[in-house]
Amino acid sequence: MSPAPATALSQPKVVTGDYGYVLEDVPHLTDYIPDLPTYPNPLQDNPAYAVVKQYFVDMDDTISQKIVVHVNSPRGTHFRRAGPRQKVYFKSDDVHACIVTCGGLCPGLNTVIREIVCSLHDMYGVTRIVGIEGGYKGFYSRNTIPLTPKVANGIHKRGGTIIGTSRGGYDNKKIVNSIEDRGINQVYIIGGDGTQKGASAIYEEVRRRGLKVAVIGIPKTIDNDIPVIDKSFGFDTAVEEAQRAINAAHVEAESNENCIGLVKLMGRNSGFIAMYATLASRDVDCCLIPESPFYLEGPGGLFEYIEKRIKENGHMVIVVAEGAGQELVAESLRATNNKDASGNKLLDDIGLWLSQKIKGHFKNRTDMEINLKYIDPTYMIRAVPSNASDNVYSTLLAQSAVHGAMAGYTGCTVGPVHGRECYIPFYRITEMQNKVVITDRMWARMLSSTNQPSFLSTKDIIESIMDEAPPTQLLDDQVAENGLVNKETTVC
Amino acid sequence: MSPAPATALSQPKVVTGDYGYVLEDVPHLTDYIPDLPTYPNPLQDNPAYAVVKQYFVDMDDTISQKIVVHVNSPRGTHFRRAGPRQKVYFKSDDVHACIVTCGGLCPGLNTVIREIVCSLHDMYGVTRIVGIEGGYKGFYSRNTIPLTPKVANGIHKRGGTIIGTSRGGYDNKKIVNSIEDRGINQVYIIGGDGTQKGASAIYEEVRRRGLKVAVIGIPKTIDNDIPVIDKSFGFDTAVEEAQRAINAAHVEAESNENCIGLVKLMGRNSGFIAMYATLASRDVDCCLIPESPFYLEGPGGLFEYIEKRIKENGHMVIVVAEGAGQELVAESLRATNNKDASGNKLLDDIGLWLSQKIKGHFKNRTDMEINLKYIDPTYMIRAVPSNASDNVYSTLLAQSAVHGAMAGYTGCTVGPVHGRECYIPFYRITEMQNKVVITDRMWARMLSSTNQPSFLSTKDIIESIMDEAPPTQLLDDQVAENGLVNKETTVC
Amino acid sequence: MSPAPATALSQPKVVTGDYGYVLEDVPHLTDYIPDLPTYPNPLQDNPAYAVVKQYFVDMDDTISQKIVVHVNSPRGTHFRRAGPRQKVYFKSDDVHACIVTCGGLCPGLNTVIREIVCSLHDMYGVTRIVGIEGGYKGFYSRNTIPLTPKVANGIHKRGGTIIGTSRGGYDNKKIVNSIEDRGINQVYIIGGDGTQKGASAIYEEVRRRGLKVAVIGIPKTIDNDIPVIDKSFGFDTAVEEAQRAINAAHVEAESNENCIGLVKLMGRNSGFIAMYATLASRDVDCCLIPESPFYLEGPGGLFEYIEKRIKENGHMVIVVAEGAGQELVAESLRATNNKDASGNKLLDDIGLWLSQKIKGHFKNRTDMEINLKYIDPTYMIRAVPSNASDNVYSTLLAQSAVHGAMAGYTGCTVGPVHGRECYIPFYRITEMQNKVVITDRMWARMLSSTNQPSFLSTKDIIESIMDEAPPTQLLDDQVAENGLVNKETTVC
Amino acid sequence: MSPAPATALSQPKVVTGDYGYVLEDVPHLTDYIPDLPTYPNPLQDNPAYAVVKQYFVDMDDTISQKIVVHVNSPRGTHFRRAGPRQKVYFKSDDVHACIVTCGGLCPGLNTVIREIVCSLHDMYGVTRIVGIEGGYKGFYSRNTIPLTPKVANGIHKRGGTIIGTSRGGYDNKKIVNSIEDRGINQVYIIGGDGTQKGASAIYEEVRRRGLKVAVIGIPKTIDNDIPVIDKSFGFDTAVEEAQRAINAAHVEAESNENCIGLVKLMGRNSGFIAMYATLASRDVDCCLIPESPFYLEGPGGLFEYIEKRIKENGHMVIVVAEGAGQELVAESLRATNNKDASGNKLLDDIGLWLSQKIKGHFKNRTDMEINLKYIDPTYMIRAVPSNASDNVYSTLLAQSAVHGAMAGYTGCTVGPVHGRECYIPFYRITEMQNKVVITDRMWARMLSSTNQPSFLSTKDIIESIMDEAPPTQLLDDQVAENGLVNKETTVC
Repeated sequence: MSPAPATALSQPKVVTGDYGYVLEDVPHLTDYIPDLPTYPNPLQDNPAYAVVKQYFVDMDDTISQKIVVHVNSPRGTHFRRAGPRQKVYFKSDDVHACIVTCGGLCPGLNTVIREIVCSLHDMYGVTRIVGIEGGYKGFYSRNTIPLTPKVANGIHKRGGTIIGTSRGGYDNKKIVNSIEDRGINQVYIIGGDGTQKGASAIYEEVRRRGLKVAVIGIPKTIDNDIPVIDKSFGFDTAVEEAQRAINAAHVEAESNENCIGLVKLMGRNSGFIAMYATLASRDVDCCLIPESPFYLEGPGGLFEYIEKRIKENGHMVIVVAEGAGQELVAESLRATNNKDASGNKLLDDIGLWLSQKIKGHFKNRTDMEINLKYIDPTYMIRAVPSNASDNVYSTLLAQSAVHGAMAGYTGCTVGPVHGRECYIPFYRITEMQNKVVITDRMWARMLSSTNQPSFLSTKDIIESIMDEAPPTQLLDDQVAENGLVNKETTVC
Repeated sequence: MSPAPATALSQPKVVTGDYGYVLEDVPHLTDYIPDLPTYPNPLQDNPAYAVVKQYFVDMDDTISQKIVVHVNSPRGTHFRRAGPRQKVYFKSDDVHACIVTCGGLCPGLNTVIREIVCSLHDMYGVTRIVGIEGGYKGFYSRNTIPLTPKVANGIHKRGGTIIGTSRGGYDNKKIVNSIEDRGINQVYIIGGDGTQKGASAIYEEVRRRGLKVAVIGIPKTIDNDIPVIDKSFGFDTAVEEAQRAINAAHVEAESNENCIGLVKLMGRNSGFIAMYATLASRDVDCCLIPESPFYLEGPGGLFEYIEKRIKENGHMVIVVAEGAGQELVAESLRATNNKDASGNKLLDDIGLWLSQKIKGHFKNRTDMEINLKYIDPTYMIRAVPSNASDNVYSTLLAQSAVHGAMAGYTGCTVGPVHGRECYIPFYRITEMQNKVVITDRMWARMLSSTNQPSFLSTKDIIESIMDEAPPTQLLDDQVAENGLVNKETTVC
Repeated sequence: MSPAPATALSQPKVVTGDYGYVLEDVPHLTDYIPDLPTYPNPLQDNPAYAVVKQYFVDMDDTISQKIVVHVNSPRGTHFRRAGPRQKVYFKSDDVHACIVTCGGLCPGLNTVIREIVCSLHDMYGVTRIVGIEGGYKGFYSRNTIPLTPKVANGIHKRGGTIIGTSRGGYDNKKIVNSIEDRGINQVYIIGGDGTQKGASAIYEEVRRRGLKVAVIGIPKTIDNDIPVIDKSFGFDTAVEEAQRAINAAHVEAESNENCIGLVKLMGRNSGFIAMYATLASRDVDCCLIPESPFYLEGPGGLFEYIEKRIKENGHMVIVVAEGAGQELVAESLRATNNKDASGNKLLDDIGLWLSQKIKGHFKNRTDMEINLKYIDPTYMIRAVPSNASDNVYSTLLAQSAVHGAMAGYTGCTVGPVHGRECYIPFYRITEMQNKVVITDRMWARMLSSTNQPSFLSTKDIIESIMDEAPPTQLLDDQVAENGLVNKETTVC
Repeated sequence: MSPAPATALSQPKVVTGDYGYVLEDVPHLTDYIPDLPTYPNPLQDNPAYAVVKQYFVDMDDTISQKIVVHVNSPRGTHFRRAGPRQKVYFKSDDVHACIVTCGGLCPGLNTVIREIVCSLHDMYGVTRIVGIEGGYKGFYSRNTIPLTPKVANGIHKRGGTIIGTSRGGYDNKKIVNSIEDRGINQVYIIGGDGTQKGASAIYEEVRRRGLKVAVIGIPKTIDNDIPVIDKSFGFDTAVEEAQRAINAAHVEAESNENCIGLVKLMGRNSGFIAMYATLASRDVDCCLIPESPFYLEGPGGLFEYIEKRIKENGHMVIVVAEGAGQELVAESLRATNNKDASGNKLLDDIGLWLSQKIKGHFKNRTDMEINLKYIDPTYMIRAVPSNASDNVYSTLLAQSAVHGAMAGYTGCTVGPVHGRECYIPFYRITEMQNKVVITDRMWARMLSSTNQPSFLSTKDIIESIMDEAPPTQLLDDQVAENGLVNKETTVC
């Protein structure tokens, strides 16, 4: 493939095959720098990898996104399998890698950092690795932090990120200038939706300048709102930690008369943490998420349901995702359109708003005095170290990123699809967000575990489906292939 | 399909399609009881499920086992998707369900019990549910325990199993007699390898007698040694809890001179817990599992490696799986061939044996006094409540089992394949064990994280591959389809 | 002693001895019901207690409050030692006991309940024990909950209180009517300051009516603001749990630029939790408590200190007790004088107020953009089960209460003084609150661990001492005897 | 006081006063170096301490050991109160301090190290502080580790000891040579019984040589077997962690038929951990400790009790302290008289021995098949970081030690007596061990919570009392003053 014209954005690389097979491939340095030399992978001399060829990924391996199929279904979308290749495009001594973390904290950040460092160092013999301090803006406003296995040792047992993070501060040109000036040729960018969009633009700029710099994104979102991949690192830990808050709300609710325990959990646009925390807990009576609109007053509304549960049980627990009911809040508060530094819409706090509304409603009811306990555990969840499962997950993610960069892949993100590490083009994870599909069984499971009202008429739902996808679709997996919503569940 | 002759075992139900599509289907009550009436699924009236048809599984949905493919690969093996069907084969009032738990403890047992009870009761309106006390032998030697949502409330926050468990005690005929005598028509059997073989035999006996009894297995193995499914419930929790023991070993090792922290973890035949716990911890210098033979003396042996690490670092941590090095132990101890009540081979304790051997070796070394701290956390791991992730996992597993039995499926087990719940014929999970594939990259990742020797020559490995699989295979996934070894990783 | 006139309050029972010995004794049923029969303590037949006489407390045993002494100090105040007596004033079959929990949740409530039940039942053979549901008002508005060892089994592993609680609802006459109507003769009242005042009034009313009813208070205050006793149950657990919030604040602060982690901890009138949590953590840069006034602006003020720390370190952690800075808040918010149902002054939320103030201050500073993360873990701390230390503590407390009631003591509370269980007259624990003494070394230790400013001039301190105590005092212990402030430390 | 003759041991410094007052004072550098200059305490310029004089300890303050008194009791033993003095005997610039940790791990070691460093540095401006690596023998065989607040930062969140530890290796002369050679003048020695004896000998040697070196012991014993002090650091954490093992044993026992969960806890000579862990848990049916002999066979024996509990309940939990039943083990195993490097008697493992004995006994019983699960959590308990309570405790301990050394005290250990930090002469904590007093109420509470047999006849007990103490004693406190056994409880 010849290099793209300097001014144009790179085009998707799509390969098709028999029986409906489609491969959405990722860019490679050779796409725009034709005659790059290759080198044998140093792992061939690594005792752990040397013994058999199978440790290296076959160049033809791809991962099928579609796994719920009928006997005659077409094969659908595939992604390139991640992992070490027999040939690499960087000499170890020439590598100068940098790592940057952007956006809010998420359990596992330090594990990813540690493992990028250890993989580069231990597997590929790379010794020049730096951390960019404090997010994107650190590229041009701060010094770098030298990273070695010794520095990275044990950091995965601490929460946060040792190289610091920030929102925003993104300046495409300045960042690539800094990359050039410092002679960096591998850039590992850990961050969410907005950060990955930035990474994509950095890649385009790097490509425009014709630099031999691999730009690899590592998707970070505690909310699990990044599509295509199975789930995001830190999500498991967040659901686990959320149990503490729900348990506390449950204990408060049970011990006090007519008591409502209200817990706000993360989830600006996607209710995955709320939904999974509810399913794991079984103590929740109502789970409110951004994807499922609700209303307070009148038949089928939240107040009616609260009254019912309090009368029956004497207490209840409500879990509300950060981004739920925004239209309600907006309406009642005439919300401003402010956005925060990363361009995220500033949300009025649904937890405080809902507390006020519920208290207000029952204040006028002389027959039912309500006791409401509100818990916002957000920072206590974000800041914990990752659990064992997320540690393993983050380790594989980092290793895949390093293998990818060494093998010359660029302009892509890494992540597991059905449990296999893949390289995924940036556009596939930035074009939409992963959301809870409320016409899907996972949400039905949730509803049947809480016994809460659906706040929806059949008509609502059918309309919502109409909006989302062509009516001929069969199943969630097909939906995903149409680039709309992508999966029934992230974990299961 | 007409009923099988009374004395023969049931035959696999295999459906083939274009482009190499194979469906390994599961038995159904109508296989041997032709004219069973059907009923509308009561979930159609459940507010959570009623609103859209999509909550019910399409009868044609199957899950592809093979996901690492080439552009022209055949489609391979598929399994029937689990989930609620529009038609069921039991009237709710007629259902009389029982649950039995067999074998050792595993985090999540109580969650599975709770959710079978709640699913039957809340989704299907079933009110007659009993627990068989104390494992298989409870069918004919103990009273049953009535199970209601109230009884099951909150039990998932406690370890163990509220209905008790035991090894062995299996008597095919007596059990089916008891099932007939009590009028039970849905049997949920939670247990490992041996237990699922028993469940298969119970199913065959039920079928021979022509009973309308659905027999559903729920695979339980803390070791993750059951094939086909992604991972087993409790595994995540076990890996998490194992971190405590490894951390303690690491602290002891670091604080004492020339100190070796030795941790024995579960894994009779499969080293998954040891491997994942090692990957999650990063503090381990050597991980020994049943699948990878090792030796003590001489060049490349364990003693040599210990000396090297102690000299370099002053301390080290070794994780050994319960079933590792059995041939070494056997040789040195002239092991008996005793088996325990479930037919498991009685293993001499590798942890104690290895402790003695290491101490013995270094006792004669006047220049290096060794300090060994041995930790066996087995019961402390098995007995904890399941974490949030396993709670969600176990919930889905139980719901799938209940949907399956209600829909008339039988003679099968349930479990996720690439994240989707499936019905899997018993023979596919009992014919072999899930094992760590040491020629696979997951093991290479492990080796490269510990830097331990592989204890293997290239010749060993090639021979081991020759033994295992035809040489034409490409990849782990194909291996799985040949019924030999099945996956690269269980979690990732 | 003849019964007090019906209308008068009971008088303190004070006994004096040589060398300045003073015993502040507690009321006894025989104070106003002269000829009560006694019975041998059933513990004499309990195998655990039967073997030696020493298991029973010597009637003359008293506990010295004053332990920091000079060679010629007078002996000072003493309290009656708690524990089983050889003679009891209730026949086991005649006992009808009730337990009530009032006020906010506190770790250990269920342990106290469990152990009152088990002690009455297992040690004294009492079978009629009920819980009053939902606090004081449950006496006259709710049914009682039968309590048995079986019901109480395992409840100490759960947070909250199984018999429910509430604030206020106190009606002296109605409660004693209910006690009389139900034939209750032992009343165990678990609650804080206000609750103990209520218990005292109930005792006076019981005494006025001449009822043979023992009224025993069990001091509950997570804030540790009850005087005389060493510390209150749940305090240890609260300090432990508070570490999670402080750790999270520290991780957030370290990972984000110019970030302040702000944690609000319990402590309406006393800053013990904040102080001990700060000392235990070592990650805190500033600890604000009700006892130590502070100011925001100007030299030596909080803003100046924040700027200094941020400039030096790039981040900081502030812990603020719920009741700190109330006068500042009041001033700026024209606080109302509302009180909550228990008569506690409604506090404007210092945490939210301080967040606003700090953000506001730095908003105008273009050279220092501040990032503030606010954590309020209150309910997540209150609702956890008690830790092992509090379980043992609560167990002894409950046993002491039961031994006291059986032995005919009444009108008193129980608690440890220098590690020994005592009976303490109500007035001693309600006449003042336990507070952090800021002229004491414990506070100096705290200051020197955070390096925060004292916000005080020498003049302020001397004045504060003048206000509090006569200038001739030597030491904290003497202070306590003068009924002013009572101890240097509660834990150490 | 003039210096003691070079060869003699120093004599106890005892001061008496009116009404039976006795002060057991500690040595001071001026005891043998007469004309030492003093300096104002630098804390007078520390903002945290400067503001009032009360932050300094009055030179006449002493702490009363006896607090359970009668109206006419004599005043008894007192200890010198710890804390900062207005005058110190070292100029900050002249101080060269060292810290050494000896013996087994204990939660809190790193906190003590951290706080000695921080106190010396932050309070007194001392900059020369080193750690002796790997215990006593590190004095003459290893390099020292420079310790600064930066090095010590955060170490209290990790288990173990950052300066390493070992048993034995004690050589009086060589150690003092090393102290002299290195110019060290403050020695902080953290360790148990044997270590403190060593510290005492080091002090004597230092005194013999007339060196201006303060030798301060910090008592470390996870078993709580050091007398006089309230409890030892790490004990609380150990009791907390032990709950995990007991919970696991309980879950295993409940889930399996006729199952015994057996947990071995630390306690070589004293059963405090076992006793408190049992009291905190409430799930234990039998607690065996070194202080209370038991027997297996016959009426009133352990086997009989096990049978009874298994028949009644179907399961049971036994907690056994490491040092329990040694005479039984010795008898049956012809135990050797070997001792370990610290001179501790090598104990045959009571846990494994008891497991075998119980299994052996029930193997012959065809009517009762027993299932025994044995858990030894020792290293998992020792290696955890200290909890909040132990962190505060350890902080005060370290500060007291530093204040003491700066003030010229030497030849003593520090620790809380009834919650107040004291300086205690070495001989008082090495002359005997702290043990559970089985004729005391704490043990009775334990017995009544488990309902286990006492394994004792009245005759046994009376004899045991006769052996221990003169018959005229009244109470535990008096016992302590007679130097025999010292307290009812350590925590309460």
